[in-house]
Amino acid sequence: MKALVYHGPGQKSWEEVPDPQIQAPTDVIVRVDTTTICGSDLHILKGDVPSVEPGRILGHEAVGTITEIGDAVTSLKVGDRVIVSCIKSCGKCSFCKTGLYSHCLGDEGASGMGWIFGHLIDGTQAEYLRVPYAENSVYKIPAGVSDADAVMLSDILPTGFEIGVLGGRVKPGDVVAVVGTGPVGLAAIMTAGLQGAARVIAIDLDANRRAQAHKFGATHDVDSSAPDWKEQVFALTDGLGVDVAIEAVGIPATFSMCTQMVRPGGNVANVGVHGKPVELPIQDLWIHNINISMGLVCTRTTSMLLNLVAEKKLPVDLMATHHFTLDQMMDAYDTFSRAAETKALKVIITRD
Amino acid sequence: MKALVYHGPGQKSWEEVPDPQIQAPTDVIVRVDTTTICGSDLHILKGDVPSVEPGRILGHEAVGTITEIGDAVTSLKVGDRVIVSCIKSCGKCSFCKTGLYSHCLGDEGASGMGWIFGHLIDGTQAEYLRVPYAENSVYKIPAGVSDADAVMLSDILPTGFEIGVLGGRVKPGDVVAVVGTGPVGLAAIMTAGLQGAARVIAIDLDANRRAQAHKFGATHDVDSSAPDWKEQVFALTDGLGVDVAIEAVGIPATFSMCTQMVRPGGNVANVGVHGKPVELPIQDLWIHNINISMGLVCTRTTSMLLNLVAEKKLPVDLMATHHFTLDQMMDAYDTFSRAAETKALKVIITRD
Amino acid sequence: MKALVYHGPGQKSWEEVPDPQIQAPTDVIVRVDTTTICGSDLHILKGDVPSVEPGRILGHEAVGTITEIGDAVTSLKVGDRVIVSCIKSCGKCSFCKTGLYSHCLGDEGASGMGWIFGHLIDGTQAEYLRVPYAENSVYKIPAGVSDADAVMLSDILPTGFEIGVLGGRVKPGDVVAVVGTGPVGLAAIMTAGLQGAARVIAIDLDANRRAQAHKFGATHDVDSSAPDWKEQVFALTDGLGVDVAIEAVGIPATFSMCTQMVRPGGNVANVGVHGKPVELPIQDLWIHNINISMGLVCTRTTSMLLNLVAEKKLPVDLMATHHFTLDQMMDAYDTFSRAAETKALKVIITRD
Amino acid sequence: MKALVYHGPGQKSWEEVPDPQIQAPTDVIVRVDTTTICGSDLHILKGDVPSVEPGRILGHEAVGTITEIGDAVTSLKVGDRVIVSCIKSCGKCSFCKTGLYSHCLGDEGASGMGWIFGHLIDGTQAEYLRVPYAENSVYKIPAGVSDADAVMLSDILPTGFEIGVLGGRVKPGDVVAVVGTGPVGLAAIMTAGLQGAARVIAIDLDANRRAQAHKFGATHDVDSSAPDWKEQVFALTDGLGVDVAIEAVGIPATFSMCTQMVRPGGNVANVGVHGKPVELPIQDLWIHNINISMGLVCTRTTSMLLNLVAEKKLPVDLMATHHFTLDQMMDAYDTFSRAAETKALKVIITRD
Repeated sequence: MKALVYHGPGQKSWEEVPDPQIQAPTDVIVRVDTTTICGSDLHILKGDVPSVEPGRILGHEAVGTITEIGDAVTSLKVGDRVIVSCIKSCGKCSFCKTGLYSHCLGDEGASGMGWIFGHLIDGTQAEYLRVPYAENSVYKIPAGVSDADAVMLSDILPTGFEIGVLGGRVKPGDVVAVVGTGPVGLAAIMTAGLQGAARVIAIDLDANRRAQAHKFGATHDVDSSAPDWKEQVFALTDGLGVDVAIEAVGIPATFSMCTQMVRPGGNVANVGVHGKPVELPIQDLWIHNINISMGLVCTRTTSMLLNLVAEKKLPVDLMATHHFTLDQMMDAYDTFSRAAETKALKVIITRD
Repeated sequence: MKALVYHGPGQKSWEEVPDPQIQAPTDVIVRVDTTTICGSDLHILKGDVPSVEPGRILGHEAVGTITEIGDAVTSLKVGDRVIVSCIKSCGKCSFCKTGLYSHCLGDEGASGMGWIFGHLIDGTQAEYLRVPYAENSVYKIPAGVSDADAVMLSDILPTGFEIGVLGGRVKPGDVVAVVGTGPVGLAAIMTAGLQGAARVIAIDLDANRRAQAHKFGATHDVDSSAPDWKEQVFALTDGLGVDVAIEAVGIPATFSMCTQMVRPGGNVANVGVHGKPVELPIQDLWIHNINISMGLVCTRTTSMLLNLVAEKKLPVDLMATHHFTLDQMMDAYDTFSRAAETKALKVIITRD
Repeated sequence: MKALVYHGPGQKSWEEVPDPQIQAPTDVIVRVDTTTICGSDLHILKGDVPSVEPGRILGHEAVGTITEIGDAVTSLKVGDRVIVSCIKSCGKCSFCKTGLYSHCLGDEGASGMGWIFGHLIDGTQAEYLRVPYAENSVYKIPAGVSDADAVMLSDILPTGFEIGVLGGRVKPGDVVAVVGTGPVGLAAIMTAGLQGAARVIAIDLDANRRAQAHKFGATHDVDSSAPDWKEQVFALTDGLGVDVAIEAVGIPATFSMCTQMVRPGGNVANVGVHGKPVELPIQDLWIHNINISMGLVCTRTTSMLLNLVAEKKLPVDLMATHHFTLDQMMDAYDTFSRAAETKALKVIITRD
Repeated sequence: MKALVYHGPGQKSWEEVPDPQIQAPTDVIVRVDTTTICGSDLHILKGDVPSVEPGRILGHEAVGTITEIGDAVTSLKVGDRVIVSCIKSCGKCSFCKTGLYSHCLGDEGASGMGWIFGHLIDGTQAEYLRVPYAENSVYKIPAGVSDADAVMLSDILPTGFEIGVLGGRVKPGDVVAVVGTGPVGLAAIMTAGLQGAARVIAIDLDANRRAQAHKFGATHDVDSSAPDWKEQVFALTDGLGVDVAIEAVGIPATFSMCTQMVRPGGNVANVGVHGKPVELPIQDLWIHNINISMGLVCTRTTSMLLNLVAEKKLPVDLMATHHFTLDQMMDAYDTFSRAAETKALKVIITRD
């Protein structure tokens, strides 16, 4: 089959590789019908994630059709149309038993982490894919949900909701600020209403993205490059700050913005993937009764969010800005890597 | 009357001052029967809290008897024996309405913060005390609860429970580590069982304090100066770290210990009062699904904790290590300020 | 002034009565600008609520302007435009301290209950009104919120949300059924989205009301007189029943419908006011892991809901179907009492 | 092998039956080292549970050693010493995914319920046992936990905690009443402290059981046959009723006691298995803001409770009042069925 293979920093190719095989009785093989590219794929290509070894097929988001099942798989069958979740989970370990799937320990003796596709094992940017612990990692797609919508459930929608909205403990009536309106920030904006947010303030440098954010549910926006950005945000609250500040960029400056704008008793939810430490001015913050959460998506809410997508309760279709076929994978990477210029949110890459 | 007056950094005296007067219809005057000294009083005396002006009477913990009530006070009467809470709260502002009493805004036009006694207004280390918004700030003491026990409800018991145990979201079966076994750390240790902690690990440099901690409910202890302190802590868990790490010191090193020992999905609850920033290694932590809380006690649980003290469910009497009378106030400060040497936890200072 | 006075079962008149006076320092007097009629006023007029004595002014919902304040009132002033909540709460008793305002014990020595207007003291269907414990019972209205919208916050909106939606523990993705689409049932339908409901099924005998329900947010409706109503409801779920069934009628038949349609692990929230016992088939239900909640609104969420109304997040304006002036009070009662025929939801009665 | 076989109402025998065999790749075979008898076994023997067919081996509680594993089992091995939970759960269905294991739907096409041992499939009162979905249904026992202690984790300890204490939402400081002090009632009493109960009132007709209850953690007891039982209970509260009333008998009279003694805002948790409907005086109760929960144990907390038992935090050893060997099974039934007379709580039946 063909797949997008990482060959070390800066190097990738769409090339012929061996087809994946069932390796354990709990595996399934999925024919990839739709996949997409994530910002973390670009990080890997820069060489920022050394645990990814050359030769690895990238990608951790897909919708596909099951073509083969392992002997222990009873709740899935060949032909099932499924979402492949970005997180693998054995369903048996102590973390899985408490729903912390992203920290799945695997079986005894094995090591591993929830995010393995396109990282520790071959990923989804390929014609076929092996999915371990499939019964805990794939979701059957109800009729009426398109591939392009469904693939948003692989990662970004549950990430925005779980790590942003639930991590931030958004509750009815809250004023929520989201710093960074890339796909995951937009997913947080889109799902903040599920917890009753009254106002959702989109904060970004990019005017186009701020404008887009309103389509996803933002009620207000603020230019983060404005010298008075903080005053603008406070003016949109009762003068005491936001209830929840969601960080969806991953740099010290935006993290700091969040701790500056959150009200006493409020929450900072970090969604961004960071590359260096942040300084926490705890000498000032300790007295503010704030809470700071962070994490990798557990995909505990994937099934529920899929129901809401099926119910047309979330404008998830707005995410798909560009379309490609699998054999245009290199073009898709090109478009996605120049997102500021191409205005790409998510690129949809389909089998035909 | 006599009172302990702050006269600028390093200077205090037990001296004659005017008696306090009712200033608002919601005030009461309390005759102080028992008071105590807090670590933050020592901080003020060092000059670390510039918002405290010379001339201020110090102290924010007391048990006393009401001697006069304002015209609007209906639920308290002269002669009532009460705990004076360290936090004042108007009960009417938006923060008070949600139970965030420590961020009470006061009436419109007024500024102010929850902690004002011995800070922005005169405090409890005196023969008499004016208590504003008294109906929201004092608690009647049931029969059978001693002054020495009741005064622990002014601050340390609710602080340890609310900011440590509840902030850390301790749940049944958890392994909880408390770094720092001063009075507030011990209060967290003492109340961790109210949320069902399975193991409580006391971590401190001081061997005497670690030994004391077992009397308050610690099941294990670890010397924080041991090179392998972290290995010792992990050996007391399933090898994945503690569910909840409570910081009760207030310096970068101990805060860092907490983020190092917390398991994925766990909680760090900061109780310590910090004087400088901490570095948060968020490039490593973001993926750990941890939660960091911090804050000033809201005293939402004071009434409940008082019931538990009355019920003899908490060994609060172990806190009182030394006893003085009001006119021995200077001696009490001396003993408390040399706690490592005198083994003082809380000094009890009574009227007679 | 003029007021609507109850003169015993079946008897009422719009008549001259003495103006209300400040009786306690925590009272205010409010000029009634807008009031409305509740189903419970009709119950009183039938003689069903014997605790209401002849001579009582009826009504517990109002928007008005403060004309006089007691000596202890500091956060309100003459001229403030306010919502008068249906629940009085002293803010000091043990129930108020935990937010259970509807069970306010009042001051020591006093008895009483949260709902007193138009019940134990004179009510809102009058030109002027005395409001006890005013600082805990009235809400200032932000600019841009009409009287007709604001008066829905006196009772029905918080009742539908707190007792229906929160009592029923609605969570994102839930299928919620509301049995009975009168004003309070519609309020539950309107606010179910604040907790992320995926589907909201309106169940009623009346075709007009079922049609109305869709404007308030219902996604589906079922005729409760259909022999296969239960099959219709189950077909709108995954075949296992609804997550939350909200009873908003108050008779045994509709309560029974709720216990029949709720899925294992689900919730029944009773909002209806009942006049006789229900039989609970606990020999079948005990194993279903269900939860049954019930209660009188605490108005803990009034302020938050008011923000959402100001934010135009709730279609509360659809409630006001008929308009009258205060001197047309008898006509307003006539229209409201024939709601099935007049299609009245809430009648709005204004000063001019 | 030998097993206790049900032969229709009133008839049972300890007899030779075929050894169990692995039937699915997720099965294991367990050699029963310790089992016990539950009140529901007596109900079955009376003929009250018609879904149990003659020929069925009874029992749903056991501790044993794995002797054989299915091909798909990777986290268990022959020789593992395990608790067999009373609830089977596939771990894959929609209910299992949300932790509602007692309503496990099984695989597609299969029907079934969480409680199947000694009910729909052969049970634990035998020398060997087949356990379906073993990786979701058995718990490895840490060193230092005896069989007699561990077998309490099969059913009664999680039932008392989950359905009684968690269902009743016990929180720190609560006054909790438990009506019925059989093994499950005592399990609720024993675990109420994990949620911080301040007072635990044991209510029973039997003076011996009330006395026993104090050893398990009851702080007070009330004779339910006393004409003034309600006054006695209210005197142990602030006069307003208990926070949580746990029903652990299963008859209308005791359920009614719970609704009579619960305070406004409180919870009734039904643990008892009922045989007939109860009348709910909702015309009085609707205004009390109470919550009524009920259900079959999900065993979500089994692992956590096992840790607490290992930690010696629960006096579970007090449950075992009588000891037998497997070949004395008929004697064990005789002793347990005359519990009032023999003062049996749990009978422990061991291999040797």
